Amino acid sequence: MNSSNTPNDWSRHLATSTRRLRRSAVREILKAAVRPDVISFGGGLPAPECFPDALIARASARLLDAEHGGRTLQYGESEGVAELRALLAESVDRPVEEVLITSGAQQGLDLLGRALLDQGDTVLVENPTYLGALGAWRPHGVRFIPLPIDGDGMVVEPLDGLLRTERPKFLYTMPNFHNPGGAVLSLERREGLIRLAEAHGFLIVEDDPYGDLRYDGDSLPSLLSLAQARGIEDQVVRLRSFSKVVAPGLRVGWLRAAPTLVDVLVKLKQAADFHPNILGQRIILDVIRDPGFNEHLAHLRKTYRERRDAMESAVAQFFPEGTTWTTPVGGMFLMAKLPHQLNAVSCLRRALDAKVAYVTVDNFTVDDSGTDAVRLNFTNASPERIREGIERLGNLFRETANRSFQLTS
Amino acid sequence: MNSSNTPNDWSRHLATSTRRLRRSAVREILKAAVRPDVISFGGGLPAPECFPDALIARASARLLDAEHGGRTLQYGESEGVAELRALLAESVDRPVEEVLITSGAQQGLDLLGRALLDQGDTVLVENPTYLGALGAWRPHGVRFIPLPIDGDGMVVEPLDGLLRTERPKFLYTMPNFHNPGGAVLSLERREGLIRLAEAHGFLIVEDDPYGDLRYDGDSLPSLLSLAQARGIEDQVVRLRSFSKVVAPGLRVGWLRAAPTLVDVLVKLKQAADFHPNILGQRIILDVIRDPGFNEHLAHLRKTYRERRDAMESAVAQFFPEGTTWTTPVGGMFLMAKLPHQLNAVSCLRRALDAKVAYVTVDNFTVDDSGTDAVRLNFTNASPERIREGIERLGNLFRETANRSFQLTS
Repeated sequence: MNSSNTPNDWSRHLATSTRRLRRSAVREILKAAVRPDVISFGGGLPAPECFPDALIARASARLLDAEHGGRTLQYGESEGVAELRALLAESVDRPVEEVLITSGAQQGLDLLGRALLDQGDTVLVENPTYLGALGAWRPHGVRFIPLPIDGDGMVVEPLDGLLRTERPKFLYTMPNFHNPGGAVLSLERREGLIRLAEAHGFLIVEDDPYGDLRYDGDSLPSLLSLAQARGIEDQVVRLRSFSKVVAPGLRVGWLRAAPTLVDVLVKLKQAADFHPNILGQRIILDVIRDPGFNEHLAHLRKTYRERRDAMESAVAQFFPEGTTWTTPVGGMFLMAKLPHQLNAVSCLRRALDAKVAYVTVDNFTVDDSGTDAVRLNFTNASPERIREGIERLGNLFRETANRSFQLTS
Repeated sequence: MNSSNTPNDWSRHLATSTRRLRRSAVREILKAAVRPDVISFGGGLPAPECFPDALIARASARLLDAEHGGRTLQYGESEGVAELRALLAESVDRPVEEVLITSGAQQGLDLLGRALLDQGDTVLVENPTYLGALGAWRPHGVRFIPLPIDGDGMVVEPLDGLLRTERPKFLYTMPNFHNPGGAVLSLERREGLIRLAEAHGFLIVEDDPYGDLRYDGDSLPSLLSLAQARGIEDQVVRLRSFSKVVAPGLRVGWLRAAPTLVDVLVKLKQAADFHPNILGQRIILDVIRDPGFNEHLAHLRKTYRERRDAMESAVAQFFPEGTTWTTPVGGMFLMAKLPHQLNAVSCLRRALDAKVAYVTVDNFTVDDSGTDAVRLNFTNASPERIREGIERLGNLFRETANRSFQLTS
């Protein structure tokens, strides 16, 4: 058998869309950085010591007892466990038909892409934006139009002009504690965005995995609630996750969309994996109904606030002069822009040698900008480890800055 | 705001592929048939009273204790939990790099379609075949070429001629206890198929969710093992599931493929949902390593064998004369072909009124044949309920046959 005649060379057999795939840099760094001697700011990991283990173990024991085991372990509905859907629908003041439970919020992004995107379609995204969304949608062969973002979130004003010539399939935004930037979309801009959606009739995908992790100030109304107030709620898809406030290993997220869109997403979900795992869904249902859940959330916020503070003060102390960032008032990330066009991509190898990991912001952009910026996760290490890791990184960046300054002067 | 200007009419916004979607008839019947007064032969549900609850509860308690909870609940690798992958790789005598754990075997089918299928591609399928595979691949706009199937599984001989003109992306087969037909691919045909794969260089997708559920006789070698013996193992993708032998609600399946293909599937998995849920994977790992697991399997086979016998004897007794079927020596289904061109599709409404559910085989064909055949699941009801339900169905089919005989004579 001649090997040229076999399908061993898979590249000849791949679908066109598959050739557009990239391996997730963050997932790869996550893999490299699991060694306990590495201080990793690279992933988006919650703190395992803050998982509500006791609540989860109690729920699991109940759900797997002789009375409940049969139901917990059997096939279930593609839409998700009915009681959980009802509770989530109530939380956004919408009918249950508009809620779909997904295998993590990532699956919501993937299903939306599959439901809506054809090759050549346009998607408006903040730049930088969440790389998992880009990864899910890039294989469809879409054109991303980058929207600038500042300390108050997406800059909404230029959109009006853009929408006179572009007909995007949707606009994707993370209004709360943006990944990677950390910014919060201001109330004024939220209202402006909804007014534009009303005027131009486009769809908004509102991704809000970190909404419950606010450390300072008060929450702002969701884009869904603002749209609902104007009767255009079917123009907003809202995605949520339990990965950050309960546990990511359970793989449970959810979304709320127009019922006709949910109907399509359910069919896609059936074909993709039938339904989200039932044990995970039912654990979540028990945990969020548990009187101890609010206490868990308060503890989580307190822990993460301390870590955010530790990271911000360490960055201020150790990073090169001229480094800029927006204080993240919630979420999991601080994005730092380095001065002097420092190339954070080329520093990464030495950082890993020094046993510190981060991801560079070029992974999150649609124009490959961001090589001078790093996304730093502050939820998955103690304040002491954060300080130590940021000091190592700061030393490395400062040395590099000094060297390149000497070279060019 | 004029509603014609809004995206509320989703049909205008859907991707081309989405318009090819159908809602799964089986999933819909499953939903209708959850009422306890309905005897459902419609789904593919395992018996909940046979779930290894005690093993699962013990595993779960261990995995969620203070020592293990952090690891069980955190994000994990897209490829799956390393220890489970290693065990599964060993079970098929292949390197760990060739194993990917999926959110149920259905996700394996979906990822394969996404990795390999472009619009216009050809896929060879048994006719009838598993409707979940058709559902996953139809949106890609592929052309299915039906291969006939008899009591010894797929009729392999005509393939040689077909493959002189067709270049399929892959051939899909269920060699063990075919869904819906129940047939087992004979050893001679297995060897013939592998010889053809070697000669023509095509890829085989071997779907084997029921392989451990054999009630009579000895297991036959898998297509993978036969391919391996000839050094062409990279031409076989083998899909397995834990849904039938442990529990479907955990959503854990796996596949073994050529390492270069696994590499692509992992990227797709990252974009789809990051990774399978960790709690489910680790429960499976504990359960299949438990000394009690073999006893569980033996009990499961004994229970299902009794139910298979109950169904076969009831079909023989109550279904109209001239009904034909192949005795399923394993798996979960008996497929019965009704005589006199009886239309099982048009009988379904009355069957549901009589509180019995089934699915018709036209859902499983690529040419809409099979309206005169029903797929009957025998694993999810007691022998008594099976007998009662088959009697009801038999009465209904015989009345219909008599009536149409009177009308036409």
